[in-house]
Amino acid sequence: MMSNEVLKAIYERRSVRDFSPMPVDEQQVMEIIRAGSWAPSGLNNQPWRFVVVKDAKAKEEIAGKTRYGHIIEAAPVIVSVFLDRKAMYHEVKDIQAIGACLQNMLLAAHAQGLGAVWLGEILKNKEKVSEIVSLPSHLELMAVVAIGHPAQRNQTSERKGLDELILKII
Amino acid sequence: MMSNEVLKAIYERRSVRDFSPMPVDEQQVMEIIRAGSWAPSGLNNQPWRFVVVKDAKAKEEIAGKTRYGHIIEAAPVIVSVFLDRKAMYHEVKDIQAIGACLQNMLLAAHAQGLGAVWLGEILKNKEKVSEIVSLPSHLELMAVVAIGHPAQRNQTSERKGLDELILKII
Repeated sequence: MMSNEVLKAIYERRSVRDFSPMPVDEQQVMEIIRAGSWAPSGLNNQPWRFVVVKDAKAKEEIAGKTRYGHIIEAAPVIVSVFLDRKAMYHEVKDIQAIGACLQNMLLAAHAQGLGAVWLGEILKNKEKVSEIVSLPSHLELMAVVAIGHPAQRNQTSERKGLDELILKII
Repeated sequence: MMSNEVLKAIYERRSVRDFSPMPVDEQQVMEIIRAGSWAPSGLNNQPWRFVVVKDAKAKEEIAGKTRYGHIIEAAPVIVSVFLDRKAMYHEVKDIQAIGACLQNMLLAAHAQGLGAVWLGEILKNKEKVSEIVSLPSHLELMAVVAIGHPAQRNQTSERKGLDELILKII
């Protein structure tokens, strides 16, 4: 029987956008990516690919492509998540799989005492981000995850109640 | 500091397709859906909606819409996950959010000692499933999650190594 530390992590995880300047241990970043890679995918096609960016100049260039650039600049490390279109088999299911991968990454960051945020607004400039990191066009940007040690942990969040979300019980 | 029970769950979770006939506690199903609802979504738009199906006749009808129908028939309960197109703001990001929601559901099932599998093949008949459960057309089927007590737990699974998945470290 698993402990309910898992449910606790799911409910207590928050989008962390304020980071302390402390660097993030490389092994913790690898664990975040490994956790992402253990998401399920249709036919186990694993369409996710990752680019880790720690270099300040590269981060600054990527930061320039989103209105949330200050978060990217403040994060000691970002992981850009790409969909490998050569590994795809079904548009909707592959994009869902990327979402599952991202959620594992966020939970793995939280479980290691780190903070992370899933940034999507940058997709408006996805081709430019691919150029900055010099990737070929079959790799499509899906999200950027900014990772660091949380500067504070006082975020709250809200969700609709189950009575609104469960449409029917048959 | 979180315990690493979270990473353990991420790595040990498997797609469970063989269920014992034992019914699933209603509160455990609600916890699975609540966990799903705590996924992140863009602008916190929470585009997921759920239909719980326990009725044998309804399950049988839904089972008839996928080649994996035997899994649905054997599961004491299924949760169909829908995207509310009226709540959407960005096609790709909303579908990713549904994927994050599904991953939380699978982890929450595992964390409660249950087994679950994310079924996607049924999307080929998504309109028919919506008809069976009498939902309007702005609710689009995204996946069916079959849930039960695992009949056995000997599944193995494999993933690509990080050396294949991490394209660059900059």
